[in-house]
Amino acid sequence: MHTGLTYETVALDDENSALVIIDQTKLPNEEVILHLKTQKEIYDAIYLLQVRGAPAIGVAAAYGVYLAAKEILAQMTGQGGSASAAYDDFLKAFREAAAYLNASRPTAVNLSWALRRMEKVVTDHADEPVEAIVELLKKEAVEIQEEDINICRSIGEYGLTLIKPGDGLLTHCNAGQLATSRFGTATAPMYLAHEKGYGIRVFADETRPLLQGARLTAYELNKAGIDVTLICDNMASTVMKQGKIQAVFVGCDRVAMNGDAANKIGTSGVAILAKHYGIPFYVCAPSSTIDETLTDGSQIPIEERNGEEISTMWYAKKMTADGVKTFNPAFDVTDHELISAIITENGIARAPYTESLKRMLKGTKGH
Amino acid sequence: MHTGLTYETVALDDENSALVIIDQTKLPNEEVILHLKTQKEIYDAIYLLQVRGAPAIGVAAAYGVYLAAKEILAQMTGQGGSASAAYDDFLKAFREAAAYLNASRPTAVNLSWALRRMEKVVTDHADEPVEAIVELLKKEAVEIQEEDINICRSIGEYGLTLIKPGDGLLTHCNAGQLATSRFGTATAPMYLAHEKGYGIRVFADETRPLLQGARLTAYELNKAGIDVTLICDNMASTVMKQGKIQAVFVGCDRVAMNGDAANKIGTSGVAILAKHYGIPFYVCAPSSTIDETLTDGSQIPIEERNGEEISTMWYAKKMTADGVKTFNPAFDVTDHELISAIITENGIARAPYTESLKRMLKGTKGH
Repeated sequence: MHTGLTYETVALDDENSALVIIDQTKLPNEEVILHLKTQKEIYDAIYLLQVRGAPAIGVAAAYGVYLAAKEILAQMTGQGGSASAAYDDFLKAFREAAAYLNASRPTAVNLSWALRRMEKVVTDHADEPVEAIVELLKKEAVEIQEEDINICRSIGEYGLTLIKPGDGLLTHCNAGQLATSRFGTATAPMYLAHEKGYGIRVFADETRPLLQGARLTAYELNKAGIDVTLICDNMASTVMKQGKIQAVFVGCDRVAMNGDAANKIGTSGVAILAKHYGIPFYVCAPSSTIDETLTDGSQIPIEERNGEEISTMWYAKKMTADGVKTFNPAFDVTDHELISAIITENGIARAPYTESLKRMLKGTKGH
Repeated sequence: MHTGLTYETVALDDENSALVIIDQTKLPNEEVILHLKTQKEIYDAIYLLQVRGAPAIGVAAAYGVYLAAKEILAQMTGQGGSASAAYDDFLKAFREAAAYLNASRPTAVNLSWALRRMEKVVTDHADEPVEAIVELLKKEAVEIQEEDINICRSIGEYGLTLIKPGDGLLTHCNAGQLATSRFGTATAPMYLAHEKGYGIRVFADETRPLLQGARLTAYELNKAGIDVTLICDNMASTVMKQGKIQAVFVGCDRVAMNGDAANKIGTSGVAILAKHYGIPFYVCAPSSTIDETLTDGSQIPIEERNGEEISTMWYAKKMTADGVKTFNPAFDVTDHELISAIITENGIARAPYTESLKRMLKGTKGH
C-alpha cells in the first residue's frame, strides 16, 4: 500500500548507530530528519513529541535501548572485563538505560511494554556472551517494528471491507503512519482504499488543542495523494448532515473489555454525531490496546494537560484574558454503544464486545 | 444587571461627533477604544469586525449614518443653499451614505434593517427642515440602541427562569454584550443569574476558527466576575458527560418558522450532544431574528468563508501542508427537534414552533 512518505516514521540507520526520526513538531512546515545517538537525545525526542503515537514510541524506545546496550558493551570492552563478570554489569546498566527512557512519557502504554520486552531478551539469555545479547536486542527491536507494520496492514485489510468506492470518511486526531511504524491504524484502510482506486474523500478534524489532524493527518494523506479536506472539529456535524460522510474511522489508546474506547479528546463527540446521523463509527485498535484488566471505560485514567495548550500554544498572541480558567482533558472515553465495530489485526469485533474482544485477544503475542 | 465592562460596545460621544467602539479584534490582549468620525472609518470598523454581532452592527450603522447626515448638513450650510432645495440634495446624499455603510457586511441582517429604518425617518419628514431631520435621526439611532438593550434585558429575564442556583451552563461563540449594545442574548440570563448570586459556572467553547468564545465570551464573563472556564469545542462532550452542564444557552442569527435556528458553526453539534446527555438546549433569539418568510432551516443560506481562517489565521505558523483543502462554513442550522426552547424578548417559545413563534412576533415593532 502506498503511503506517500519518503522516509520512515522511526528507523535505525545503516550503521546501527542512530535512531532516525522525522521531527513531528516541525511538520507540516519543515521536514527535518533527526539522527539521535545519545540516550538524552532519544529521551528528549519522545518527551518533546518529536516522535509520538503509542506504537511509534514503542518502536523508538526499542531501538533506543538497543543503542544504549551497544554503547554499554563498547564501554565494557574498552575496560577489558571478563565475559562472566560482564553480564551482571551489563544487565545493571541496561536496566538503568531502560528506566531512563521509560520515564520520558510515563502514560504511553507501548513505551513500557516495548522496554519490558527488550529486557526479557537480556534476562532470557543470561548464559550467552554480551555481544550475542546485543545482537539479539537488535533482532527483537526489528521484530517489534515488523509486528507493528503487520498489525497496521492487517487492520487496513479488515477496515477496507467496511469501505465502498466513492465513500467520504471522517477521522479525528492522527492515528496515521506518523503514529506507527507504517500505514497507521485509522488511516490504514484509507491508504488501502486509495491504492485500489476507490476514490475516497477524507475529512480530517483539525483536533484542538494540539492540531494533530491539521498538522499531521492532513499532511500525510495529502502526501499520499488522497483527497483530504481539513475542517475545524465543530464542523463535523455539518459535513455529516450534508451527506459527505459514509463512515468514521478513529484510532484508540485503550479499550476496556465492554468496548468503551479511550482516544484523543473529542472522539466521543464525533461518535455521538455519527450515531445521530446514522453513520457507522469504527475504532481501529491493535489488540495490544485492549486492556483485559478493565471492565468498562470509567476505569481508564484521563490525562489532564497544561491549559496553556488551549490558551496560548500555537498562537501568535495569547487568546484569553488573564484570569480565565481552562479545562484541558487530553482524551475522552467513547461509550461502546456508540461504536459500530472495533477493528483489530485479528478481525472485526462487534457488540456484545465482552465476548467479541476476547476472541480478538486469542492468538495475540504476549504484551 | 452588572456586566463588568467599563465601556459601551457601541456609543455616540458626548459631542455627537464620533462613533465610539472597543476594537474587538484587539481583545482580549488590548482594550483599544476607537473614536470613528469619517464614513470610511465606520465602514472599515464593521468590515474588519472591530465591531461585530448583528445587533451591535445595527446600532453602529444607525449612529454612523446619523454622523453622515450631520456632515452632509454642515456641507450644505457651508454652501448656503435654500431650505427647500436642500431636502432633495440631503436625501440623495443620505442615501449614498447609507448604501456605502450597507455594503460593509452584506449578510448582516440588522445592518440593512437599521439603515432602512433610519432612511424612513428622512422620507417621513420631507416637509421639515433638514436641521430637524438630522435631530430626528439622532433620536431614532438612540431608540434603536435602547430597544436593543431592552430586548436583551427581557431575554435575560425569561432565560433566568430556566436557570437554578449552582447550575453549570455552556455557551458557544459570543452572543454576549460585545455582540449587542448591552447584556447580550445568550449571556443575558447569565449576567442576571450572577447578579442574583446564583453561583453559576459557565463553560465557554473557544469556537474555531475565529475564537470568539475564547477571545470575547470568556473575556467578558470573566470581567463581570462570573466563574468561566474555557474549553476547546471538542471538549463539550466530556464536560457534559461529567455532569458539569445543566443547560446550554446560545444565540442565533436567523430562525425559520418551524424553529430551525442558524447560528455560529458548531452550534448544531452542541445541540446533538446536549440531547444525547439529556441537557436542555436553549436558543436566545430577539424576535427580529425570526424570519417569517422561511418555513424551515434548509432555506437559510450558509456563508462559506476563506479557508485561511482555518489554516493560518491566529497562528504563528501555517498549520497545514500546501495542497490541503479546507472547508469553512461560518454557520450551521440546528434542527428544531434539538431545541428545548427559543427565548425571545416576548416570551419563551416551545414546540410546536410553527405556532409558538407566531406568538413571539405579535406586538413586535416593524422590522
